[in-house]
Amino acid sequence: MAARFARTRARSRALAAPLTPEDMMLQSMEDASPAKWHLAHTTWFFEEFILKPRLPGYRSPDDRFALLFNSYYVQAGPRHARDKRGLISRPGLDDVWAYRAQVDDGIAALMQAGRDDLDQIAALVELGCHHEMQHQELLVTDLLHGLSHNPLLPAYRDPAPKPVSQERPLSFTRHDGGLVEIGHDPGDPAFAYDCEGPRHRVFLEPFALADRPVTNRDWIAFMDDGGYRTPTLWLMDGFAACEAASWDRPLYWWRQDDEWWTFTLRGAQPVNLDAPAVHVSYYEADAFARWAGARLPTEAEWEHACAGVAIEGNFLDAREFRPLPGGGLWGDVWEWTQSPFTPYPGFRPPEGAIGEYNGKFMVNQFVLRGGSCATPVEQMRESYRTFFHPHQRWQMLGLRLARDA
Amino acid sequence: MAARFARTRARSRALAAPLTPEDMMLQSMEDASPAKWHLAHTTWFFEEFILKPRLPGYRSPDDRFALLFNSYYVQAGPRHARDKRGLISRPGLDDVWAYRAQVDDGIAALMQAGRDDLDQIAALVELGCHHEMQHQELLVTDLLHGLSHNPLLPAYRDPAPKPVSQERPLSFTRHDGGLVEIGHDPGDPAFAYDCEGPRHRVFLEPFALADRPVTNRDWIAFMDDGGYRTPTLWLMDGFAACEAASWDRPLYWWRQDDEWWTFTLRGAQPVNLDAPAVHVSYYEADAFARWAGARLPTEAEWEHACAGVAIEGNFLDAREFRPLPGGGLWGDVWEWTQSPFTPYPGFRPPEGAIGEYNGKFMVNQFVLRGGSCATPVEQMRESYRTFFHPHQRWQMLGLRLARDA
Amino acid sequence: MAARFARTRARSRALAAPLTPEDMMLQSMEDASPAKWHLAHTTWFFEEFILKPRLPGYRSPDDRFALLFNSYYVQAGPRHARDKRGLISRPGLDDVWAYRAQVDDGIAALMQAGRDDLDQIAALVELGCHHEMQHQELLVTDLLHGLSHNPLLPAYRDPAPKPVSQERPLSFTRHDGGLVEIGHDPGDPAFAYDCEGPRHRVFLEPFALADRPVTNRDWIAFMDDGGYRTPTLWLMDGFAACEAASWDRPLYWWRQDDEWWTFTLRGAQPVNLDAPAVHVSYYEADAFARWAGARLPTEAEWEHACAGVAIEGNFLDAREFRPLPGGGLWGDVWEWTQSPFTPYPGFRPPEGAIGEYNGKFMVNQFVLRGGSCATPVEQMRESYRTFFHPHQRWQMLGLRLARDA
Amino acid sequence: MAARFARTRARSRALAAPLTPEDMMLQSMEDASPAKWHLAHTTWFFEEFILKPRLPGYRSPDDRFALLFNSYYVQAGPRHARDKRGLISRPGLDDVWAYRAQVDDGIAALMQAGRDDLDQIAALVELGCHHEMQHQELLVTDLLHGLSHNPLLPAYRDPAPKPVSQERPLSFTRHDGGLVEIGHDPGDPAFAYDCEGPRHRVFLEPFALADRPVTNRDWIAFMDDGGYRTPTLWLMDGFAACEAASWDRPLYWWRQDDEWWTFTLRGAQPVNLDAPAVHVSYYEADAFARWAGARLPTEAEWEHACAGVAIEGNFLDAREFRPLPGGGLWGDVWEWTQSPFTPYPGFRPPEGAIGEYNGKFMVNQFVLRGGSCATPVEQMRESYRTFFHPHQRWQMLGLRLARDA
Repeated sequence: MAARFARTRARSRALAAPLTPEDMMLQSMEDASPAKWHLAHTTWFFEEFILKPRLPGYRSPDDRFALLFNSYYVQAGPRHARDKRGLISRPGLDDVWAYRAQVDDGIAALMQAGRDDLDQIAALVELGCHHEMQHQELLVTDLLHGLSHNPLLPAYRDPAPKPVSQERPLSFTRHDGGLVEIGHDPGDPAFAYDCEGPRHRVFLEPFALADRPVTNRDWIAFMDDGGYRTPTLWLMDGFAACEAASWDRPLYWWRQDDEWWTFTLRGAQPVNLDAPAVHVSYYEADAFARWAGARLPTEAEWEHACAGVAIEGNFLDAREFRPLPGGGLWGDVWEWTQSPFTPYPGFRPPEGAIGEYNGKFMVNQFVLRGGSCATPVEQMRESYRTFFHPHQRWQMLGLRLARDA
Repeated sequence: MAARFARTRARSRALAAPLTPEDMMLQSMEDASPAKWHLAHTTWFFEEFILKPRLPGYRSPDDRFALLFNSYYVQAGPRHARDKRGLISRPGLDDVWAYRAQVDDGIAALMQAGRDDLDQIAALVELGCHHEMQHQELLVTDLLHGLSHNPLLPAYRDPAPKPVSQERPLSFTRHDGGLVEIGHDPGDPAFAYDCEGPRHRVFLEPFALADRPVTNRDWIAFMDDGGYRTPTLWLMDGFAACEAASWDRPLYWWRQDDEWWTFTLRGAQPVNLDAPAVHVSYYEADAFARWAGARLPTEAEWEHACAGVAIEGNFLDAREFRPLPGGGLWGDVWEWTQSPFTPYPGFRPPEGAIGEYNGKFMVNQFVLRGGSCATPVEQMRESYRTFFHPHQRWQMLGLRLARDA
Repeated sequence: MAARFARTRARSRALAAPLTPEDMMLQSMEDASPAKWHLAHTTWFFEEFILKPRLPGYRSPDDRFALLFNSYYVQAGPRHARDKRGLISRPGLDDVWAYRAQVDDGIAALMQAGRDDLDQIAALVELGCHHEMQHQELLVTDLLHGLSHNPLLPAYRDPAPKPVSQERPLSFTRHDGGLVEIGHDPGDPAFAYDCEGPRHRVFLEPFALADRPVTNRDWIAFMDDGGYRTPTLWLMDGFAACEAASWDRPLYWWRQDDEWWTFTLRGAQPVNLDAPAVHVSYYEADAFARWAGARLPTEAEWEHACAGVAIEGNFLDAREFRPLPGGGLWGDVWEWTQSPFTPYPGFRPPEGAIGEYNGKFMVNQFVLRGGSCATPVEQMRESYRTFFHPHQRWQMLGLRLARDA
Repeated sequence: MAARFARTRARSRALAAPLTPEDMMLQSMEDASPAKWHLAHTTWFFEEFILKPRLPGYRSPDDRFALLFNSYYVQAGPRHARDKRGLISRPGLDDVWAYRAQVDDGIAALMQAGRDDLDQIAALVELGCHHEMQHQELLVTDLLHGLSHNPLLPAYRDPAPKPVSQERPLSFTRHDGGLVEIGHDPGDPAFAYDCEGPRHRVFLEPFALADRPVTNRDWIAFMDDGGYRTPTLWLMDGFAACEAASWDRPLYWWRQDDEWWTFTLRGAQPVNLDAPAVHVSYYEADAFARWAGARLPTEAEWEHACAGVAIEGNFLDAREFRPLPGGGLWGDVWEWTQSPFTPYPGFRPPEGAIGEYNGKFMVNQFVLRGGSCATPVEQMRESYRTFFHPHQRWQMLGLRLARDA
């Protein structure tokens, strides 16, 4: 656990390394947070749920950090306005690094002590590490969004050559379905969030799942066929969102010299035709699937289909920071499912503020599966459910087609 | 079919009878439409999908009615702005009655002719009747919303004495669940909307369903216990909606002389403590259930539980226009389920504009079951799914509790 | 005074004569009110400020009418929401006509009685008549706005042939200015609103005023020259309003068969090239003037220039309901001045609710002069100031150019 | 001129000295800009209007700075979105300092060269210096607004003891008025903005002007008397703004331990009762004046009254950064007048982008006079007009009462 803690905390530092104090102030919309805030919030999580209740004599560097760096845990006290996180110039970055160091020391001290509650501490540290990994993904995607508002189009990491692109035909694999089991078994000691369980039975009709994600080449065909201007392809709320926001392409794309370009953490790049399409909303993914004569998979289908597939692919650890051609089920882009994020039968969140982690988001969001190029690989598992609102686009969001078999 | 058509059309006329031309102009929000528009739109539906394509020589009284009275059928042509329906002073009410008469005559002529396509016509007339029944419910609830903005609190129908109210303790009935079937079998000749099928298997864990809906007495206990001010009882989006709209009671309630009053189609009335709570959003229903240590049922649980229960109760035909104490599964109030409105496995909407009826609404809405005091009883069946957005309140929306068994 | 009262009340009846009860419900935006409301509000004004305090035993038909039909007189009690006036289906139109009749009888009774306060009553009746005349203009222009949302483009009065149009070159008349007097002398027994006085001295530099209003022909030249797309012609707030509302022509215009058409109370008509341009905001008028190398006049210049010019022209009484070619300073269109609506030196509103008539609007509005085709001529005088916000367009608003001499 | 240039540029550096790079990113609303942007924009002004057209071979460090650092000069090319200035993390602060140094060198080079256009250059440099002084005031007030969103309430400069406060009774000085002259004479070689001229005649009735600004003590009396809840004291638009924003005190005030506190650039401080009230909108100032049985002065009255009064007081140079008790006409707080910002007779802006400086703002704003504790004193003169929208509060805005004599 100490190794995981060290590894996790080091990953945050490494992600922040190329950034200036000013970069780490960027907050370009309410959904996104400054990098500095992510560094502090993940630290507060360890402090609030482990050090304060369990490390005798622990004092926060500033009692008001709890106000500034709590995100949405109502039971942990009042919270600064979410859309004003970009206005916290003080504490400065140095103070946040010092805060991190102090909390790192506290956790180290706790874990080294011979204590009765080491198991509980280890469980909480593990939760804190997974929590921080989620924020590492957010740090990366929020930063991309923030930098995208700068007409200078600054690169986070040095530009990379365009990978070799090769068209890969679309094929489907049939699955028989039947009464299958999905979800995380609470008795399984491996880590999982509360919302991944309980393990339960679901009846699946036979289905087929595409062998690759939808690519940019596919997406351009949809655009060229008037996909964004054809209301019958869309859900009603989806087309309203499309018109209100004047969507006619994925987020971050523009047209230049008869070619599609996109803004990435590696700077401006021509769109890679055979990389997975990314930065598309649920509404767009759903319309694309209808246009393609297919549909999105359910999350049960996805989870059933991934059973036994090795969790390897283009994750954050590859430091590509962009989807690449040729991947499989895992990595590159999160894949929208048609499943709203709802509780599994028998779901019951834990008591206390920790119980606010997932349950209160179970409305108006859709589940995605598979992880992305911004996800630390050690965060991934078959039962993992992430979720976003159907209009959101700034994460590494893509799709894979399914069909009734 | 002719009898159903006559009965349906007559019901609309009867519902409109107590209204002045001015009452029938009321549009109090985009979700609601004027009574005159409902009368015209349901007529346009028969004209557009039956008379125009099938009755040789048929001419609309005014070609522009298609623009005014199409609701959302993109494939049937352009549509007037939904939020401007209350600004259509012309055609006047007399012209709309004449429009209805002309279409009635046309449908009668069609059904009496010896034609090869009588089966298809009958199916479309049946769909049109069910469509009109849905709008009868909307006419009633939209009218209530419209009248509620008038400080004179005018009654639609004469006030009625307060029914005898008797407290009824809460009890639950256990259901074993297992692999059950729900939904409408496409081979079944009885009418159902596309979204009610196909019939399919669902695995249910054992559950228990309350024997009565949540009552106003229950709801006041929730209010008195601070339910509206306790964020931990609420979904995150729900509490945000609650705060933004300053909800602290059901829609239409106010406090007067130390008692709760409510506005109904029978005028202002003291809240009937043992009648089902009504005009509560999904967000409120969900929070109430959490407060009560229970949950909302899924729609599969509801449909499974109602199997074989006679469809009787306080429906529109009783002309009560308000929920009453003592009812069963059916009638009084629609009951929120925890199930988002999603397609059943294998769902495929019909071709053409008719296919826009349900499928394009399958996002951001929740299913309700059971019908209400504003629903014509002949519209009801076990597989019937209605659906609303989780913030909406103006329909006859209530709830029934469920539990894991 | 009795004659003026009878004439004024009769004019309202005549204006309403062509309207159905449904037409009289139309409220198409918060700035506009239903015709029925105008009829009731002007009646309430007589009731509230004359009958209630002065006619012994007077009883309103319904005490709640004060709530429904007060507009903005805070000191006269609470008021129904301004943007919900279109939702008052009851009292119905017949009840409003009965209300008017009762108040007419009350005023007649008061004026016939031999009373000590007849002078005060006469002054209040005169104020009430002028108030009702203002609402007659609003009734007409609000109705035009309401009907314009109906795709059927219904005419209020039968269409009229397009008047003979003849181009009239632009010329200017020089005025020497100097220390001049404007405003209404409080000692003058003729009626004027409080804001028209006191009479006071203003120093004017020499100036020149155009001999005719800006015409539609002029306006089309401005449009064709890119006037709506050239930010340097506009005030900053004006161009922002122009872009936000996508203005590129006057209100109610559209393009049809290579010609400009407009919606009027006489139905759809081709734009009359030599009639005064109408339905343009202050922002547009100001930009036009800058484009034309001129400016708008100040209200002091306008008032000084109109001295001695007979108040004749195309007013409401002509029942044209649209500007016509060939007019002079008075009638056809209100003319924007560059003067914000501010108090004259020494202005002090009367005590009580009547004092809310004008003073509280003295911010963010601009003065217009000259009256329009919707203004009763007996309402006009040299000192008359009307005022609107710079973005508003739905009144009969036009302009006349001025220059430094 | 070189001395003024050096002094002005040095003042900006000094103002920025206590700030971190993160502080200089703060943009808390669209009206405010980050300190870094102010430093760069004022530099761009010299570059764009002097160096680019006049210094042969001059190259900007980055051609895209023109896009980033132009504010609203349409004729100088496209501009980055005003509300996104806080998202420009790059160029970093060091790059902006280097930009300033390069432009300083360029201006020095220009001014030292023996050139024919030295007079024009000097005039432009003077304009640029005055422009930068305006932005120095904005830098200070925008920073205060930005820091106020931080719950830590960080001080810009070290806290100062509360100055001795002594109540000063309100007295008025009478002025006879008559036909007076105001405004800047274009023939006068001293610097003034275009909108300050031409000098022209205005007729003033006799009036009286208060001998001191309204103080916090006065303001609390207004609050305690229900001033914020009494609509009859307010302009209609003003009370609507008051209700919409829930105003019940000046900006930055809060209640603590039975005392009013306020946030200042010196940190949190108890409200100084005898210092001028500050951070009040025009709407509030107008309501206060009506409550006090007085009115706001016109700008002509103010300018006439200040003739010959030495321009001394609590300006930016005192480095107090807050109003202090005991001041006179000049300094401490800008004083709202009742005069909308309109062109003087004969006003004509210069050709080209420079002409956009003032003229396009002449709508919807009110003039203030006298300068504030955030204004460099060398910017002040009798004819100086600043202007803000009537709802704005974040500048150092106060008031002084006037009366008809």
